[in-house]
Amino acid sequence: MAYNVAPLAKLIEHFERIPGIGRKTAQRMAYYVLNLPKAQAEQFSQAILDAHEKIHPCKVCQNLTDGELCQICANPSRDHSLICVVEDPRDVVAFERTRDYGGTYHVLHGVISPMDGVGPEQLRIKELLGRIGTQEVKEVIMATNPTVEGEATAMYISRLLKPLGVRVTRLAYGIPVGGSLEYADEVTLSRALEGRSEL
Amino acid sequence: MAYNVAPLAKLIEHFERIPGIGRKTAQRMAYYVLNLPKAQAEQFSQAILDAHEKIHPCKVCQNLTDGELCQICANPSRDHSLICVVEDPRDVVAFERTRDYGGTYHVLHGVISPMDGVGPEQLRIKELLGRIGTQEVKEVIMATNPTVEGEATAMYISRLLKPLGVRVTRLAYGIPVGGSLEYADEVTLSRALEGRSEL
Repeated sequence: MAYNVAPLAKLIEHFERIPGIGRKTAQRMAYYVLNLPKAQAEQFSQAILDAHEKIHPCKVCQNLTDGELCQICANPSRDHSLICVVEDPRDVVAFERTRDYGGTYHVLHGVISPMDGVGPEQLRIKELLGRIGTQEVKEVIMATNPTVEGEATAMYISRLLKPLGVRVTRLAYGIPVGGSLEYADEVTLSRALEGRSEL
Repeated sequence: MAYNVAPLAKLIEHFERIPGIGRKTAQRMAYYVLNLPKAQAEQFSQAILDAHEKIHPCKVCQNLTDGELCQICANPSRDHSLICVVEDPRDVVAFERTRDYGGTYHVLHGVISPMDGVGPEQLRIKELLGRIGTQEVKEVIMATNPTVEGEATAMYISRLLKPLGVRVTRLAYGIPVGGSLEYADEVTLSRALEGRSEL
């Protein structure tokens, strides 16, 4: 309905598809891109392609990486007998910000959610069990979000792990219940890590 | 400081440079792009390049277009003796939404603002004067924003146009003073258009 040149309208549309971005913000963003120096616009365009082509899951922890192993799995100074299980790559970023955690991670890429049609087989759970079988793991910290689905996923995985003789712990409720790990501040996350309890 | 894969960090950085987009939103947007189907990500990337390569100012009104003339200048059913002078291409979009205006536009691409080092020579004023010389123009409606700079620009241009024997009008103050044309609703803009006064 609104009058806009076709290539511009298309760019606005792409921005508008991003969740949380409304028509007005999408328009502002598109005009910003339009006014960028040509080289910068090309870099922006290339960054989208690169993110798609170069990023894939780490073959050990399933976190996003552009190498074969992620930086954390490839780091010999990290404690590889300790695995922190999170829902999302962004949760790894949140933990790394605390600088308190020296172990490794395992990224599930979701939580069990029958309402959304997500079952255990869609998550990277078998890869986690595979790690328990092939490397020496002393402890698995369940760090899913404190939501119904997150708790259920943690319980489900802990029941699979316990028969294997692995210590399974859960983050302490320093995290506000119903909140999201991604938005927890460093101190809260550190406290939650310290106060972790047996599951 | 935060841990992120390089191609992802770069994409986040590009989003974060957009004014009004903070770190958290940029991160969400980058992850959204990362999770897009490959074809869609390629289209997004291409849309950025297209907007840059295909869009340029209309040779008559200076509005953005992907043709030689913009859709409005190329339309013979528009009243080409009426020119509405606006600051920004987005203001054209706003006017077109009212469906009340049948004339043409002239986009200045800014306002005179000595504080920001923008003088009359940086705006598309000589192109406007050129139009007065080569085509029959009965009326020029000054529709710059009701800000100090917008008013000053309107006054400056009207002083150049009056000696040429053109009727110069100004949008009525239906627009809330201090506001922005871009955010005015259709009705307010229509009223402002109806109540325009001699400058």
